[in-house]
Amino acid sequence: MPLVRVHNFSISLDGFGAGEPQSAEAPFGHAGERLHEWMFGTRFWAEGGSAGMDDSFALRHSVGIGAEIMGANKFGPPGWQDDPDWKGWWGPNPPFHTPTYVLTHRPRSPLEMEGGTTFHFLSTSPEEALAIAQEAAGDLDVRIGGGATTVREFVAADLVDHLHLVQAPIVLGRGTRIWDGLEALEDTYDIEAVSSPSGVTHLTFTRKAGTAEVPA
Amino acid sequence: MPLVRVHNFSISLDGFGAGEPQSAEAPFGHAGERLHEWMFGTRFWAEGGSAGMDDSFALRHSVGIGAEIMGANKFGPPGWQDDPDWKGWWGPNPPFHTPTYVLTHRPRSPLEMEGGTTFHFLSTSPEEALAIAQEAAGDLDVRIGGGATTVREFVAADLVDHLHLVQAPIVLGRGTRIWDGLEALEDTYDIEAVSSPSGVTHLTFTRKAGTAEVPA
Ligand SMILES: NC(=O)c1ccc[n+]([C@@H]2O[C@H](COP(=O)([O-])OP(=O)(O)OC[C@H]3O[C@@H](n4cnc5c(N)ncnc54)[C@H](OP(=O)(O)O)[C@@H]3O)[C@@H](O)[C@H]2O)c1
Ligand SMILES: NC(=O)c1ccc[n+]([C@@H]2O[C@H](COP(=O)([O-])OP(=O)(O)OC[C@H]3O[C@@H](n4cnc5c(N)ncnc54)[C@H](OP(=O)(O)O)[C@@H]3O)[C@@H](O)[C@H]2O)c1
Repeated sequence: MPLVRVHNFSISLDGFGAGEPQSAEAPFGHAGERLHEWMFGTRFWAEGGSAGMDDSFALRHSVGIGAEIMGANKFGPPGWQDDPDWKGWWGPNPPFHTPTYVLTHRPRSPLEMEGGTTFHFLSTSPEEALAIAQEAAGDLDVRIGGGATTVREFVAADLVDHLHLVQAPIVLGRGTRIWDGLEALEDTYDIEAVSSPSGVTHLTFTRKAGTAEVPA
Repeated sequence: MPLVRVHNFSISLDGFGAGEPQSAEAPFGHAGERLHEWMFGTRFWAEGGSAGMDDSFALRHSVGIGAEIMGANKFGPPGWQDDPDWKGWWGPNPPFHTPTYVLTHRPRSPLEMEGGTTFHFLSTSPEEALAIAQEAAGDLDVRIGGGATTVREFVAADLVDHLHLVQAPIVLGRGTRIWDGLEALEDTYDIEAVSSPSGVTHLTFTRKAGTAEVPA
């Protein structure tokens, strides 16, 4: 059965997946690029990077994925909905290469990009968005791409099978937090923590057998 | 120069050092004993325990310490101040073996216990409490013993040289949180994360050279 997966979602020690304020100049707010420095050092990110633990985790992001779902704040800075020409942060050939569903309360027409990415805009429940993405993904898995609000929403709705968080050794103090409302995740997931020589700790949450929600 | 140290302070993935509600029956609230399971498996805690990474970290708790400072909620359950006979959780011979300063807005007379522990009760600023504890500790270090509110207070006042947190793979969702108000700790401390085979991750914050606050 296809899975619902989160990969490479980077958080601070205090659980923030982005700082504040988010803007066109600073998409991650005061976090800057610090949440993702571990990834910039990998071969996944750039030729010449390391092929070690961080790279092994990072690579899984793209393997076996048939669609992504992301939140409105990942797709653009506050107010992008007012700009009819906004096409995301990623240029003409975004790194998704699949149908990509953007959750927003102000949806617009689909945007076909180069390289296989088409952005679709949805205002609906996590369950319904996932059904649509799974239909598009066929036999492949669906990735929940972030930000924290969206990951949290899907985990809270018990829709995620595999959650990979990467804890960077910084304390952000403010931003959007992954943990709120997720009490007792350890009941649903086996949790593995492994720290990397780069200084981050990879946290993997793997759904325990028998804890999948029974479809209504 | 003697240091100010925190050891074995256990937190959940979401940063809580205790659950809720705290009570005589459940000192750690809904966290139960789960925050400290890693420690129960060590030789530091009990004969026959492991002598590996967790034990090596745990042992440092007691080495070179001349006094402890703790918060009122570590010393007893809510309302202990109303019980003139309350002498702490630890029986006649508490595991501190030094002068031990309990911060409370309702101080009482000192309590001399067996084994070298004397509880003193103070209502004063972190700076002043530390000066008193350092006077008692002489050439030895002072340990800030918790809970989270007290550790946070001393870290925020820039009084802590060495902070050892142990992240357990549980999500508590509520309780007293260590991180609030500690934005940008990485500017003051070198941070090391190392995960242990037991499943916890040891986080060590070591004050960077040259970042000590200049005494007023
Ligand atoms: N740490 C990482 O690895 C990582 C990964 C990806 C992104 N990020 C960063 O995280 C930040 C964004 O995260 P975030 O938590 O602020 O927001 P987000 O999860 O990207 O987006 C949340 C927004 O999506 C819309 N939305 C979510 N669910 C919806 C639903 N069911 N129906 C309709 N609309 C829905 C709502 O926007 P509206 O109501 O405005 O339409 C909501 O405010 C950005 O800075 C981004 O760069 C970090
Ligand atoms: N996770 C761990 O490793 C660990 C370690 C130790 C303890 N704990 C647990 O943590 C919990 C207690 O933590 P907590 O954060 O709730 O509280 P705490 O830090 O133990 O105590 C906070 C209280 O101490 C008093 N206090 C603090 N600073 C003061 C000052 N400058 N002057 C006067 N009084 C001051 C105040 O109490 P009043 O105003 O009421 O006097 C304050 O509410 C307990 O469940 C304990 O078992 C956990």
